[in-house]
Amino acid sequence: MSPSDAVVLARAAWSRLTEPGDLVAGAVIAALGPVDALGWLHEVAPHLPGGRVGADLPGLSPPVVRHLTAAAERWAVRLASTDPERELRVLERVGGALVVPEGPGWPSRLADLATEAPVCLWVRGRTDLDAVLDRSVSVIGARACTGYGERVAGDLASGLAARGWTVVSGGAYGIDAVAHRGALAGRGRTVAFLAGGVERPYPAGNAGLMAAVLERGGALVSEVPPGSVPSKVRFLQRNRLIAAATRGTVVVEAAWRSGALSTAGHASRLLRPVGAVPGPVTSVASAGCHRLLREGSAVCVTDTGEVLELVGDFGEHADGGTAAGTGAREADGLPLELRRTLEALPVRRPAEPESVARAAGLTVGEVRAGLGRLELVGLAVQSGGRWRRASHPQTDKSP
Amino acid sequence: MSPSDAVVLARAAWSRLTEPGDLVAGAVIAALGPVDALGWLHEVAPHLPGGRVGADLPGLSPPVVRHLTAAAERWAVRLASTDPERELRVLERVGGALVVPEGPGWPSRLADLATEAPVCLWVRGRTDLDAVLDRSVSVIGARACTGYGERVAGDLASGLAARGWTVVSGGAYGIDAVAHRGALAGRGRTVAFLAGGVERPYPAGNAGLMAAVLERGGALVSEVPPGSVPSKVRFLQRNRLIAAATRGTVVVEAAWRSGALSTAGHASRLLRPVGAVPGPVTSVASAGCHRLLREGSAVCVTDTGEVLELVGDFGEHADGGTAAGTGAREADGLPLELRRTLEALPVRRPAEPESVARAAGLTVGEVRAGLGRLELVGLAVQSGGRWRRASHPQTDKSP
Repeated sequence: MSPSDAVVLARAAWSRLTEPGDLVAGAVIAALGPVDALGWLHEVAPHLPGGRVGADLPGLSPPVVRHLTAAAERWAVRLASTDPERELRVLERVGGALVVPEGPGWPSRLADLATEAPVCLWVRGRTDLDAVLDRSVSVIGARACTGYGERVAGDLASGLAARGWTVVSGGAYGIDAVAHRGALAGRGRTVAFLAGGVERPYPAGNAGLMAAVLERGGALVSEVPPGSVPSKVRFLQRNRLIAAATRGTVVVEAAWRSGALSTAGHASRLLRPVGAVPGPVTSVASAGCHRLLREGSAVCVTDTGEVLELVGDFGEHADGGTAAGTGAREADGLPLELRRTLEALPVRRPAEPESVARAAGLTVGEVRAGLGRLELVGLAVQSGGRWRRASHPQTDKSP
Repeated sequence: MSPSDAVVLARAAWSRLTEPGDLVAGAVIAALGPVDALGWLHEVAPHLPGGRVGADLPGLSPPVVRHLTAAAERWAVRLASTDPERELRVLERVGGALVVPEGPGWPSRLADLATEAPVCLWVRGRTDLDAVLDRSVSVIGARACTGYGERVAGDLASGLAARGWTVVSGGAYGIDAVAHRGALAGRGRTVAFLAGGVERPYPAGNAGLMAAVLERGGALVSEVPPGSVPSKVRFLQRNRLIAAATRGTVVVEAAWRSGALSTAGHASRLLRPVGAVPGPVTSVASAGCHRLLREGSAVCVTDTGEVLELVGDFGEHADGGTAAGTGAREADGLPLELRRTLEALPVRRPAEPESVARAAGLTVGEVRAGLGRLELVGLAVQSGGRWRRASHPQTDKSP
């Protein structure tokens, strides 16, 4: 299904008329459709400011009409200067395309944003975003990162990319750049969600990196049209897209008040898992991560395996086999099939035997038998038909 | 109240006859009292091994009698060589005294161990352990620690000691030693729970430090009598004492399988709060701490203020004022009384207005009024009459 030119043009126009995250615009577009909503705005604009608009729309209460009038006044200010055809030409000149909810490639996960969803996405590179973002993790963090943060972000991004996961970040300096670069180093795909126009990614210092992202099958994505400069508010709104578009968000380094925490907050609100990488308590660059851990807003993640477990990919985790030595010793001496079953078992979130079987490359029957035996020796735990490894904080060494 | 000589001698004897954590001994002593229990053992010992003992005791089922027989056989082996008077003389020669549940100074918190409680404590230094341990935190970790761990453990111990808290640890090399030393540096008190006899603390390399612990008003404590060597099992059992005797346990550095995790496990089982200090994910010395955080067995703590909050001392926390900058900015520009109320509010665990008032040095009325105003501006959160600071992961900076 291909969206009509009218829909594409109307959504492109709305993206210029509004600022990201405009709930009123989202509601009007959802109610009337983008084309009719734009037509309505053209009709009422001559009466603004000063008039009262929307009273003719069905089902709006007086306070909503007041809201709508105020919003429409803001939109009307930009109406005359809005030229979506010109902006789409600019996008085409840099090889981009507009992705809209009515057309192919729209990331289905953005539906969770409801009326806060973007009206369209200005995209360079891969436009089949729904597929590209299906298995994706955002790896984000401070611009003012440390060598430690760079190392960890690079390792995580490269490990995720090597396992076929798309690494999403914000194209900024610091952790973002390292995440994109790490994904490329892992021979994987990476997507940058930008706060300004995609035709000239900000910051200019990352232009070479952004070009590499495109060359290697990734994408640059923004909800604001070409020519838009990134502003503080746009950065914060962009963060909701990163959180919404991915399966989970990992904060590598963040100061006590870092923008990365806003992404984590959006992710939590959208019920996406959030991971935080711990660091030295002596490092202010890790204070925000520790804050998330303390507040219980994030799970402690220390390597690729734990990130994959966070986003719920048991099979990948077991294949990857980098989970901080978990089970390595317990598995010693077990028969091969049991060992494979044990290693395919998630540490935290219990999984169905079917999922374990897939991860282990065994039949469900073999896995069921194996799980029973692992439970008998205290290596596996079952609850409600789902299984995970037993945790053993008690150990065998003197202090 | 002073325990009779017979009780002291009987408990000293039991401490030699049994290994730490002997549940059967705990049950027999609890049922008969230490003196009669010892008398009973003397009576039945001639029939062991081979006989069946305890059938004459009231209310014991056949399986319990079997247990008791097996245990009494183990105790009887040592009966002939047990000379509590000699061991008490050894203790007195190094200035120590036996602390027993029937006498003064017994740490009341050990009651939570039930039949796993020690039969007595061989103590050098302060014997009013209940008072000394009232406000105490254990600071523990790996012997094989890093410079990072040393720095953090030293800072925490010194900060806790400076605020009047007793720092408890295990007298070992590594984090333990740094914790004791840090407490002394903070001009505070520290107590070492040892796995061997207190007359010759193990390891010998810490002899100078242990002497300093005693000189500065601390104590060396063990449940095994003089002459006992520390064994792996005794180390692990000693860990339960550290966990039980303190208000909470903080693990500073611990490898994936460190004995410190057993202390944390005991603390959790005893419903004591457990804190873990995060560190670089690239450091194996922090892997155990991250494991505790991932498994939800510990709260992330990064400074003295957060440790005090962990163990539930709101007043101290507010006085100390080292909590990772929390509220420092929010408080800017608030009237002084509101600022004091905000700064006295715990970040995590909600507190009663009375407790906040104590911490803030304000009347309860002033605090109640202030809390209402702080709630209106989104800085304080109430639930069920208890208050904490609002958490604000959303921030005001671009990424």
